[in-house]
Amino acid sequence: MDQDLATIVRETATEMALAPVRGRVADYIPELAKLSDRHFGMVVITADGAEFAAGDADLPFSIQSISKVFALVEAMASHGEALWQRVGREPSGGAFNSIVQLEAEGGKPRNPFINPGAIAVTDLITDGDDPRAGAGRILRLLRQLSGNGGIAMDGAVAYSEAATGHRNAALAHFMKAHKVLSGNVEATLSAYFHQCAIAMSCRDLARAGRFLMNDGVDPASGQRVVSAEQARRINALMLTCGHYDASGDFAFSVGLPAKSGVGGGILASVPGRASIAVWSPGLSPQGNSLLGTRALERLASATGWSVFNPNR
Amino acid sequence: MDQDLATIVRETATEMALAPVRGRVADYIPELAKLSDRHFGMVVITADGAEFAAGDADLPFSIQSISKVFALVEAMASHGEALWQRVGREPSGGAFNSIVQLEAEGGKPRNPFINPGAIAVTDLITDGDDPRAGAGRILRLLRQLSGNGGIAMDGAVAYSEAATGHRNAALAHFMKAHKVLSGNVEATLSAYFHQCAIAMSCRDLARAGRFLMNDGVDPASGQRVVSAEQARRINALMLTCGHYDASGDFAFSVGLPAKSGVGGGILASVPGRASIAVWSPGLSPQGNSLLGTRALERLASATGWSVFNPNR
Amino acid sequence: MDQDLATIVRETATEMALAPVRGRVADYIPELAKLSDRHFGMVVITADGAEFAAGDADLPFSIQSISKVFALVEAMASHGEALWQRVGREPSGGAFNSIVQLEAEGGKPRNPFINPGAIAVTDLITDGDDPRAGAGRILRLLRQLSGNGGIAMDGAVAYSEAATGHRNAALAHFMKAHKVLSGNVEATLSAYFHQCAIAMSCRDLARAGRFLMNDGVDPASGQRVVSAEQARRINALMLTCGHYDASGDFAFSVGLPAKSGVGGGILASVPGRASIAVWSPGLSPQGNSLLGTRALERLASATGWSVFNPNR
Amino acid sequence: MDQDLATIVRETATEMALAPVRGRVADYIPELAKLSDRHFGMVVITADGAEFAAGDADLPFSIQSISKVFALVEAMASHGEALWQRVGREPSGGAFNSIVQLEAEGGKPRNPFINPGAIAVTDLITDGDDPRAGAGRILRLLRQLSGNGGIAMDGAVAYSEAATGHRNAALAHFMKAHKVLSGNVEATLSAYFHQCAIAMSCRDLARAGRFLMNDGVDPASGQRVVSAEQARRINALMLTCGHYDASGDFAFSVGLPAKSGVGGGILASVPGRASIAVWSPGLSPQGNSLLGTRALERLASATGWSVFNPNR
Repeated sequence: MDQDLATIVRETATEMALAPVRGRVADYIPELAKLSDRHFGMVVITADGAEFAAGDADLPFSIQSISKVFALVEAMASHGEALWQRVGREPSGGAFNSIVQLEAEGGKPRNPFINPGAIAVTDLITDGDDPRAGAGRILRLLRQLSGNGGIAMDGAVAYSEAATGHRNAALAHFMKAHKVLSGNVEATLSAYFHQCAIAMSCRDLARAGRFLMNDGVDPASGQRVVSAEQARRINALMLTCGHYDASGDFAFSVGLPAKSGVGGGILASVPGRASIAVWSPGLSPQGNSLLGTRALERLASATGWSVFNPNR
Repeated sequence: MDQDLATIVRETATEMALAPVRGRVADYIPELAKLSDRHFGMVVITADGAEFAAGDADLPFSIQSISKVFALVEAMASHGEALWQRVGREPSGGAFNSIVQLEAEGGKPRNPFINPGAIAVTDLITDGDDPRAGAGRILRLLRQLSGNGGIAMDGAVAYSEAATGHRNAALAHFMKAHKVLSGNVEATLSAYFHQCAIAMSCRDLARAGRFLMNDGVDPASGQRVVSAEQARRINALMLTCGHYDASGDFAFSVGLPAKSGVGGGILASVPGRASIAVWSPGLSPQGNSLLGTRALERLASATGWSVFNPNR
Repeated sequence: MDQDLATIVRETATEMALAPVRGRVADYIPELAKLSDRHFGMVVITADGAEFAAGDADLPFSIQSISKVFALVEAMASHGEALWQRVGREPSGGAFNSIVQLEAEGGKPRNPFINPGAIAVTDLITDGDDPRAGAGRILRLLRQLSGNGGIAMDGAVAYSEAATGHRNAALAHFMKAHKVLSGNVEATLSAYFHQCAIAMSCRDLARAGRFLMNDGVDPASGQRVVSAEQARRINALMLTCGHYDASGDFAFSVGLPAKSGVGGGILASVPGRASIAVWSPGLSPQGNSLLGTRALERLASATGWSVFNPNR
Repeated sequence: MDQDLATIVRETATEMALAPVRGRVADYIPELAKLSDRHFGMVVITADGAEFAAGDADLPFSIQSISKVFALVEAMASHGEALWQRVGREPSGGAFNSIVQLEAEGGKPRNPFINPGAIAVTDLITDGDDPRAGAGRILRLLRQLSGNGGIAMDGAVAYSEAATGHRNAALAHFMKAHKVLSGNVEATLSAYFHQCAIAMSCRDLARAGRFLMNDGVDPASGQRVVSAEQARRINALMLTCGHYDASGDFAFSVGLPAKSGVGGGILASVPGRASIAVWSPGLSPQGNSLLGTRALERLASATGWSVFNPNR
């Protein structure tokens, strides 16, 4: 299989490199808009530790919403079940930045992977008024899990997000009005913009996500990141809510827990089998990487990897 | 494990029999309101064909929305991919009978498991104006898969549904106005009310659902019901949309594809491992069996059955 | 002024006859779609009984939603204040046939001039299961107030409405599910489709509306139609809700109580001064007569007629 | 009539002083929550300049949203028709601070009297980044029209509003994200909080509103404040949108253009007849003065003042 997997990864990358329709690069932040849509990178790490890489596997990109998975890990560690008083666990049925649901439901966001939910999670892990606290915790976790101490935030991206982030500011103030946020709104937003601006490669990301396929234990270090139950729950949330209002379609077509970001990255896990990261900046209308999704669909189909496969 | 499983099923049933809080029996249909909330039944059929039953395992109940899974099977067989032009594959984020989303999205329902989506599916399999056609196909399928030719529709329940089904009539007329339904509205509604009124036991239901754990092949007869890909997709839809606006919570807490009905039944599948049916008439506020959900949570926890378990 | 008024009416009609942009004739009913957009008619009846007519003043057209004013008169007469338990008095902020608000507000429609509100009013005046009862009362009232016993329903239009009226059927079933309707849904819908299909001319309509400018007394017969307070309230509802989600704009631009219909007619009242009917089949995107609105704007501007004019 | 009017005003005030149910004093701002619900004040100024006062007619209170009328006057003066590109003229059908509509309609608020609309208007008249500019223009206008140079902003109230105004901040950031606001968000919000904190008495307010009954000319000074057409349009907006989602009910019951504020004040105009200000801090669930509304209803009924009265 490993030989096969190498072929599958290589062929998938070749196919994606040639794809004529590549989606639309996010343009709401000048720093992201500069990217070429030609990029495609992919890394698969299997349970036995083998790594299969192709394309721009080592080029850092802005992980954006993928940071929400690791913010959730931090909040689970420090707040346990109390976390769920601030944020729900249901698919929202709406866009990633919709404010309608907040108004209808007393300011409590549906899940930790839509923007308001992620801001509420970041508020929890940003103790006090220091915006560096929250984003700093996430950065340290990512460095440790990937083994790459050089991972950093892209200051220009963070600055751009803050300057254009009025919609996220609206979400944060709205939740503050409903007492769903406890910290200072500006500090929480700054932390959120900084965590989204973390830049890392597919290789770093696939490594950082290994605990997700391994019931919460990082196979590289043997250290437990979250409990087995928490790991399964994070996977469940990624499957039901990881692709905004295209989550159902992703579960239907790919069948794997995954989280996307508008930088074009997707982190996916195959419980017991593999940790996967893909990157291609062109997005679908729902804001998920177009070729990244297609690559995962192809990989899942070729390998039979699906949480719904009885012979997995 | 089999010995263990027998114990787990027996103990779960005993625990549920004693539970003081039992949910609220559906009262919108007089026929359903008559049921005692004391009932609890459970059947687990493993991949090797062993059956573990407890409680009211052989008492027929109204399967209601669980019929939507089998209607979907029929529509997949007869309409293939064209089916998805009429109905989506996304969690709705709303209640099972909400009409708001239809207005916002041109009359196309979000998925086949909310009421409007199921009505659209039934419309597809109800050729012409004969209401018996659609419900009849579902009934034949259930008899064949369960091996019980005595399964029947409960006429009193169907009549009650029709008499009180103004909300479903509103959904159907709304979709007809948007040309999402092609048949006669009254015939489609009648077929829908009849399929919901099919009565069968946990044992029949667990048997009928065996193809879901087995990539689409009925292990009893060896016959293919749907393709492997279709079986995985049905499981994906059950996981993301099977419990209305509590689907995310169910995936989070139980981690298995499942479909509930307001009659108090739930059909769950563990790919590669088991087909499960539980029944208890008391419902949660979202309309899912309270003790049925709790029993599945306990069973999943005791067995480790979860699509997110790496060692499954 | 009367001489002036004759000139104003004649010049307005001439201007409208030549207008190049004429709106879009309603096409959801075949019978209405047949109409030419060249038609324009106008009749103004002043408090002293003088009539000023121009264009197609005597050509009957389908009054459609204008019938809602007279249905309201009937319901006020027979149900008094109890009427307001079934329907509200607020602008809806949405389209004439929106169902969203019903879901959010327990099935109670916002006001008697949006479709669900009008259906609820018609349900009240349709005693028992005889659809002819409700529409018949409205027809008799219109014949009496206009002095034209020849006013009739257009059967082809009523049939067309029923055949294509799935959206209205959805609204009616939805309200029935919430017990806002008490009668048989089909009977109420039939009555509603028939009242909308009443055909009459601008002259008939302006005559029928004279009680609105005269505190509830028909100046022709001296008979009281509604109390003075009720007449003022109907005018208030026409001003705030008479043009669906363009009501605010109409109040802003014209400043008169008025009710429009998708047949292209508008009935307006100038308390103490005049009753006005205009007709031109081309509609604005909100479903109000484009030239009818413009004619009223011109007339109001030339005469100074506005409920907000201090010197009126 | 004048003698009668004195009696009506005096008796109305006496009746309101004794009313057992007085509504609920706004408690979202500590400064407003301190007020006793026993207050009631009323001033009527007729077209001939006579003033009729009763109760706490000369006690200053926080005008809050009534300031929106005067902000609109300023924006009409400086921006003319261009103003309507930023804000609509339709009743919203929702609460005063709802954000749902903004999301559905591209960030453009429905009318200038709901919070987002008022913030958009204040943004227009707050040139540059100086928050004092916008609120200062409104203050100067109110001093001039009332003839009371002592009218001032209540700093404690403005500070309280800013500290608790996260919901308004959410609205402002949301509109900024849609480019409906052009200025600095913090400056616009500060201006808005300051204009709402202007304190003045019923006498000052009734005097400041005299131009509304007089086609735009201040009868005291003979100076034109807005054009006759603009005055009628402001009256139309007050009638259709002046009481949030109770505007329809107010038009139905009272029949006069009026604007309320959560401080308990209401400014009403009777075109050609009178300018009226009432004040009582207890509010209805929709946020309008309970006794203020009842007093206006009683006054309108006793005097026959209604824009729908043919003999007005």
